[in-house]
Amino acid sequence: MAQRRTDRVTISDVAALAGVSTAAVSKIVNGKGSFPQATRDRVQRAVVQLNWAPSAAAVALRGARTRAIGMVAGRTPDVLNSDPHFALLIAGIESELAPRDHGLLLHIVGEQPDAAERAYRRLATERRVDGVILTESRVGDPRFALLRGLRLPAVLVGTPWQSDPVPTVRAAEQDQGMADAVEHLVGLGHRRIGYVSGPEDRVHTGRRRAVFTEALARHGLSPSHLLASDFAGQTTGSLVEKVLATADRPSALVLANDMMALAALAAAQRTGRQVPRDLSLIGHDDLPVGHLLHPRLTTVRQDLAGLGRAAALSVLQQLGEEPAGPLPEVTPPQLVVRESTGPAPG
Amino acid sequence: MAQRRTDRVTISDVAALAGVSTAAVSKIVNGKGSFPQATRDRVQRAVVQLNWAPSAAAVALRGARTRAIGMVAGRTPDVLNSDPHFALLIAGIESELAPRDHGLLLHIVGEQPDAAERAYRRLATERRVDGVILTESRVGDPRFALLRGLRLPAVLVGTPWQSDPVPTVRAAEQDQGMADAVEHLVGLGHRRIGYVSGPEDRVHTGRRRAVFTEALARHGLSPSHLLASDFAGQTTGSLVEKVLATADRPSALVLANDMMALAALAAAQRTGRQVPRDLSLIGHDDLPVGHLLHPRLTTVRQDLAGLGRAAALSVLQQLGEEPAGPLPEVTPPQLVVRESTGPAPG
Repeated sequence: MAQRRTDRVTISDVAALAGVSTAAVSKIVNGKGSFPQATRDRVQRAVVQLNWAPSAAAVALRGARTRAIGMVAGRTPDVLNSDPHFALLIAGIESELAPRDHGLLLHIVGEQPDAAERAYRRLATERRVDGVILTESRVGDPRFALLRGLRLPAVLVGTPWQSDPVPTVRAAEQDQGMADAVEHLVGLGHRRIGYVSGPEDRVHTGRRRAVFTEALARHGLSPSHLLASDFAGQTTGSLVEKVLATADRPSALVLANDMMALAALAAAQRTGRQVPRDLSLIGHDDLPVGHLLHPRLTTVRQDLAGLGRAAALSVLQQLGEEPAGPLPEVTPPQLVVRESTGPAPG
Repeated sequence: MAQRRTDRVTISDVAALAGVSTAAVSKIVNGKGSFPQATRDRVQRAVVQLNWAPSAAAVALRGARTRAIGMVAGRTPDVLNSDPHFALLIAGIESELAPRDHGLLLHIVGEQPDAAERAYRRLATERRVDGVILTESRVGDPRFALLRGLRLPAVLVGTPWQSDPVPTVRAAEQDQGMADAVEHLVGLGHRRIGYVSGPEDRVHTGRRRAVFTEALARHGLSPSHLLASDFAGQTTGSLVEKVLATADRPSALVLANDMMALAALAAAQRTGRQVPRDLSLIGHDDLPVGHLLHPRLTTVRQDLAGLGRAAALSVLQQLGEEPAGPLPEVTPPQLVVRESTGPAPG
């Protein structure tokens, strides 16, 4: 027990820690044999704890790729509806995977703290995917250490919370779109401008709010309202209805996504206000629905499909399925002015 | 060559037809080894052509389930956004798969005629999934024969175009929701009622339109307009704008899904009309967005999550992962009256 573990951890160490034979470890790691769930879990935990890289197994399996890329969402199953930016990202990912006969293995595992970790472990040790795509970078994100331990090729879509722990895809310039949104509103004469952000634990939440606040400060202004909502439209709708009922209501609102902006538009209409005559609105992402609304939504376009494409290609490069080389550029977020913004009420 | 093929097709027959060794067939079917794509394709075609059930391989692999269920969509990658009913269905599927540590392997392969078939073949012969869920039942659907040949457990969500070729999940009663929508509008005094359907090749398109027409006929009415759109909001929006500009415009429209109804609502507002004062609207599916709009959307609720759950459980039962037994009931489509329908203009 006093022996120091080094990189040369062997299959025997894993077997000893898990209390099973080396043959059982080999089978479980290769997805063979029938074992009780508890045994498989013990082996998976031992693999991660010892940071064991089953290199022989990996070599043996190189010819037996799953041709599946994994994506684990620690969200409730309705996430694709309640937060449609996922759907656009998946569209981008699929547009690169499909022509290469790869599929996307989705695990939407709910919000229990350990569920996502358990899913990644299983994907890795049972070799159900060749690599994974991570989204929704969070503050204190534990997934990077986990994936390093699992030796699972991975790419993160977005900005990591610390240094770059796995390859990352994002636009070279990320702040100009939000800054332009503020300039646009100030240029229209707005002085009372509020921001409705998404959940606080997302890395981009704090960043975008900071850009918003700094852009206002350049004009000697500060935010009239800083509100936090979940990404669901329902919450945002009641929040906006309440704010609009106050005497110091904003004349313009910037919202963290387009579904939230849609909910704000309906809240304004419901309380007898016209957009943009009484209230200007700017969304984020440029989801297709924004173009269908009346008035059509002014928004900060994110190249979600491009992010998905770049993420898929990054994983395929790591797997040697695509030649190494620069990834396609992701278009930086940019303001798209449509009809939901207008001059500040006189 | 004159020999008659029977059910006792062997691996040698497959090997002979594909022009490879039996060892190569075995490896390819089991997803082992490195073979050129052309060779893998030849073996896959031979397996399907001879209707070979690789039973030994199946037995050997029984302990090595992929724990993945496949879903192949012959649509463009943006389908999850442009047709959000998919996202709700996936939510239902995931809510049963996730607690059982199964994932959903998505292949969104585009609209080329052979792409979906190629994807199913690969999923089956390379054993990337344990079973598949089919959606979007079409007229003349070729997938059932294909899947029978591939011996891949499958379930269809919806109404098959002929007899039941694979297990099917759907509500016991499917027509009352649409009939009630018509009754609701007639009861509000509407006489000029139009219908905007989805693509003609879907099995449900013809059926729902027939129910709509029959329900009107019971009141001595016929449809004022029968329009066909793709499922995209853009097309629907311009279609509705055009219809509203004519002298014989309808006072109420029923649309094949909620995104189309959202587009119709915007089209009405854009041309200076108020909903429901000047035009009543009814959508279909009850997507979350309908509840966010102003006015809130009257719609025919479909139990999409329930359909997804039942489909997932049906496949898991076929795989022996769930005890056999009746599937949970799917709630029949039902009219949900909100704010987008009102008395016919006087």
